[in-house]
Amino acid sequence: CECVWTVGGTSDTIFANDTASSSSSSSSYLGNLLVVPMDGSHWVGMKAIAQEMGRRGHRVTVVIPEVSIRMGPGKYYDTEIHPVPYDRAYIDSVASAHKDMMQKSSQSFMVRTKKRFSHILKVIDLIHGTAESLLFNDSLISHLAQQGFDAVLTDPMVPTGSLIARKLGIPTINLLRGIPFSLDVNSAGCPSPPSYVPRFFTGYSDKMSFKERVVNTLVSVYRHIYTGRCMHEERIFKKSQSHIQVNIVILCLNRIDLILEFPRPLMPNMVLVGGINCNVRNPLPEDLESWVSGEFGFVVFTLGTMVSDLPEEKTSIFLEAFRQIPQKVIWRYTGQVPDNVPENVKMMGWVPQNDLLAHPGARAFITHAGSHGIFEGLCHAVPMVMMPIGADQHHNAQRLADKGAGVVVDIFSITTESLLQGLNEVLHDVRYKEDVQKLSALHKDRPVEPLDLSVYWTEYVMRHKGAKHLKPAGIDLNWIQYFCLDVIALLASVVLLFGILIVKCMKLCFRKLNPRSSCYKKKAE
Amino acid sequence: CECVWTVGGTSDTIFANDTASSSSSSSSYLGNLLVVPMDGSHWVGMKAIAQEMGRRGHRVTVVIPEVSIRMGPGKYYDTEIHPVPYDRAYIDSVASAHKDMMQKSSQSFMVRTKKRFSHILKVIDLIHGTAESLLFNDSLISHLAQQGFDAVLTDPMVPTGSLIARKLGIPTINLLRGIPFSLDVNSAGCPSPPSYVPRFFTGYSDKMSFKERVVNTLVSVYRHIYTGRCMHEERIFKKSQSHIQVNIVILCLNRIDLILEFPRPLMPNMVLVGGINCNVRNPLPEDLESWVSGEFGFVVFTLGTMVSDLPEEKTSIFLEAFRQIPQKVIWRYTGQVPDNVPENVKMMGWVPQNDLLAHPGARAFITHAGSHGIFEGLCHAVPMVMMPIGADQHHNAQRLADKGAGVVVDIFSITTESLLQGLNEVLHDVRYKEDVQKLSALHKDRPVEPLDLSVYWTEYVMRHKGAKHLKPAGIDLNWIQYFCLDVIALLASVVLLFGILIVKCMKLCFRKLNPRSSCYKKKAE
Repeated sequence: CECVWTVGGTSDTIFANDTASSSSSSSSYLGNLLVVPMDGSHWVGMKAIAQEMGRRGHRVTVVIPEVSIRMGPGKYYDTEIHPVPYDRAYIDSVASAHKDMMQKSSQSFMVRTKKRFSHILKVIDLIHGTAESLLFNDSLISHLAQQGFDAVLTDPMVPTGSLIARKLGIPTINLLRGIPFSLDVNSAGCPSPPSYVPRFFTGYSDKMSFKERVVNTLVSVYRHIYTGRCMHEERIFKKSQSHIQVNIVILCLNRIDLILEFPRPLMPNMVLVGGINCNVRNPLPEDLESWVSGEFGFVVFTLGTMVSDLPEEKTSIFLEAFRQIPQKVIWRYTGQVPDNVPENVKMMGWVPQNDLLAHPGARAFITHAGSHGIFEGLCHAVPMVMMPIGADQHHNAQRLADKGAGVVVDIFSITTESLLQGLNEVLHDVRYKEDVQKLSALHKDRPVEPLDLSVYWTEYVMRHKGAKHLKPAGIDLNWIQYFCLDVIALLASVVLLFGILIVKCMKLCFRKLNPRSSCYKKKAE
Repeated sequence: CECVWTVGGTSDTIFANDTASSSSSSSSYLGNLLVVPMDGSHWVGMKAIAQEMGRRGHRVTVVIPEVSIRMGPGKYYDTEIHPVPYDRAYIDSVASAHKDMMQKSSQSFMVRTKKRFSHILKVIDLIHGTAESLLFNDSLISHLAQQGFDAVLTDPMVPTGSLIARKLGIPTINLLRGIPFSLDVNSAGCPSPPSYVPRFFTGYSDKMSFKERVVNTLVSVYRHIYTGRCMHEERIFKKSQSHIQVNIVILCLNRIDLILEFPRPLMPNMVLVGGINCNVRNPLPEDLESWVSGEFGFVVFTLGTMVSDLPEEKTSIFLEAFRQIPQKVIWRYTGQVPDNVPENVKMMGWVPQNDLLAHPGARAFITHAGSHGIFEGLCHAVPMVMMPIGADQHHNAQRLADKGAGVVVDIFSITTESLLQGLNEVLHDVRYKEDVQKLSALHKDRPVEPLDLSVYWTEYVMRHKGAKHLKPAGIDLNWIQYFCLDVIALLASVVLLFGILIVKCMKLCFRKLNPRSSCYKKKAE
């Protein structure tokens, strides 16, 4: 649930920079790629790579469930559609749960928590349904096995793609923002010293006090003792009777950028491709282009794939605030459009978010701070009013706010005043624009464009049938070996034994020299 | 002391691939770079970057001592010459020590060790002399301070460049193969889990037995307790009254490639540029071109900057072996050329090593496995007969031999037979050629050429006046904090206290329930 994206139609043209792939071998090689994507905003980056791989002449096949939130066919890849045990109405009901969460509620904490938990279970069921209907679709799997794929590009949030790769005996390439409990970092054998790598959701920076380091260490110990698999993964692994770890991964394309992360150790098979989607863009449609033009510019307002509709009272809070600013506002809104929409506000079922942000008239970006949206805002240097809802969004928003690229407003307790204050701050205080411009310059200063880099390493794994020389030996160790706890135990025993021996010797000497302490002597006999 | 290099003259032309730098911002920026190089083979990569930076329009100033082994002016950079307290004869005497080491000697082990130690002291004195004569040359330093440099590119084997950068208040970029005791890795705050990162010189692979892990852990503990500075650095630091660590480094350009290293954690400010020198090349001079042509091809034989002369009896061993092969041999040899040189052997004071290896007629490369030479052999896929002498050469040779790219022959106990055996193996067993070709393909398969990448990141640091966002927080922690030993001590104390409390409670309960054990009761009272 991260950002809005234009699917299908003319939006498939890619303006990506082609000059980066300087390797002579990369240009001639044409392969056969299987893509096992995840639905929702996760599809954004995956589609960008699938399209670009296809455009460069590779054969690309994307496996898609017959009902999905936003996945669909594209110009440069084939699709394999597989049946799923749910319908559109079920997906819509899952999506609408986000709207309920926004509702100012007189319900008790317990009732709300129960609701929330049942929503999470529903999402997990949806993910399972999709994964199992693919993994146990024998005819589709054997059909895929006959296609002679070179590699699988997949989203490791669910291990479906990895399992298929294992079945097909081909290498896996992961595209990810991160997996809960840092499973991705662990399974890559990548160390994360708790002394300066803050654990996700702790909210700590890389400069921690002693107390913070204690908490951070406890969190990371818990994580390591934790079985190493998510609840839903466990179920799928069990059913597929394949007790493998996620660590069969060959290469990870990480959708992060170091200007937003604290510097931490990386493994050689981790490639950073944050901002992969920013160059996938088009000119604005003519009617939208003429509407957004005007001396005061405009504000882009989206809350991601999953939150495109708000409760009535929340909607009116936003409209009331927008009425008081001279800027136009383009709002991605799929719910019932109210009667009292101000003239400067346009509510649309979908918006070309990245194209709008790239427009010189964009003055501010109201966003839920999903991992795709923030990079689009950052890439085009648009100051942000961030309203994180869940997942990594609070982390993203806080990091951007710390760097001066925008302000954070709590969407659950929002008022017209708090929204206006935040909006006016980023619209009128030039420091936000200056800071986001500096950040944008740093973000865009890289030897190879993230999309080109993703394509390059995907091709690399395909043409070399893997990348064995990048596989860290650490992933074959259990955690006792990995942390050398057995070695430490041995060394500690030796030191202890040595200590005890010295004490014993000293006691012996003492007794020999001082025969009066006979009680000890007697006992020793 | 790694490889032969053509200095001056026409060899300055660079055929590097320019297409890689796709960033729009990189092309327009022109800056002012100070280069503080190290002498010997270390100059090779440094000169390549200095030349290329100058060629792209940056102002580049290289600080060079008035007497040096191989450093000198170039087409695209200015030089600042500073006086040093030694002369050419002293440098030659240091270089000739290597020849002595090759001598079959009737001297006792003690005498040889003493000789070796005195040679090391001589080298250290030479390094010190150079460093101090630059650091305490006040007029030169204040002249440099007025030039408005953006950054210092330096070799961190000696911290001269870092110290000048600190004095001038500008960021440092390091170009390195590695510093003894992995000081570079430590000072970058980069973790090296002893469970799968073998320590240098242990000769272990990344898959270690329990015993090997114990040794590896002990070595790394020793390294951490070690003060963290080399002997000669200590002296320079002391004299310059500047007690800083090497950790002011902004960016490290590491002359390594992952096909030759075991995959290990890296920090985001470490950029891998192994093979930086392979694209700096020219066509062969006409006379050499016509001499090397022939149906059997030719062998290139060099032992690096420091070993260009051998004792007479060793030379004749080589000549005897060469007499028995049909290939021509080009040997870099600065000593007295003997009378009985076979017709197929050409002994030259210098050879264009990289240009020769790039020639299709090159059949084998007899090398000391220095870090520049091996990449030239690898780049041009020439099987190698490796004769490591010191430093990282044994490690390099072993890694290449493990991968099938060549054989290792001990130069100290070499005979005509052992040399012929090794040479014939790589010349006639096609597996060596096949393996080195595979390895070469992997090595050259990279999104950006190493020289372009080096230039890119050097420019990056210059245009952003550093790269603060890449600085790991770990480098500001002491080793107790870094390894969370204080946290572990606290947690262990809590667990221990808890354990003691439980035992006490249980004892108390036991006593209450079993009043017969009165002796304990009495004692407790």
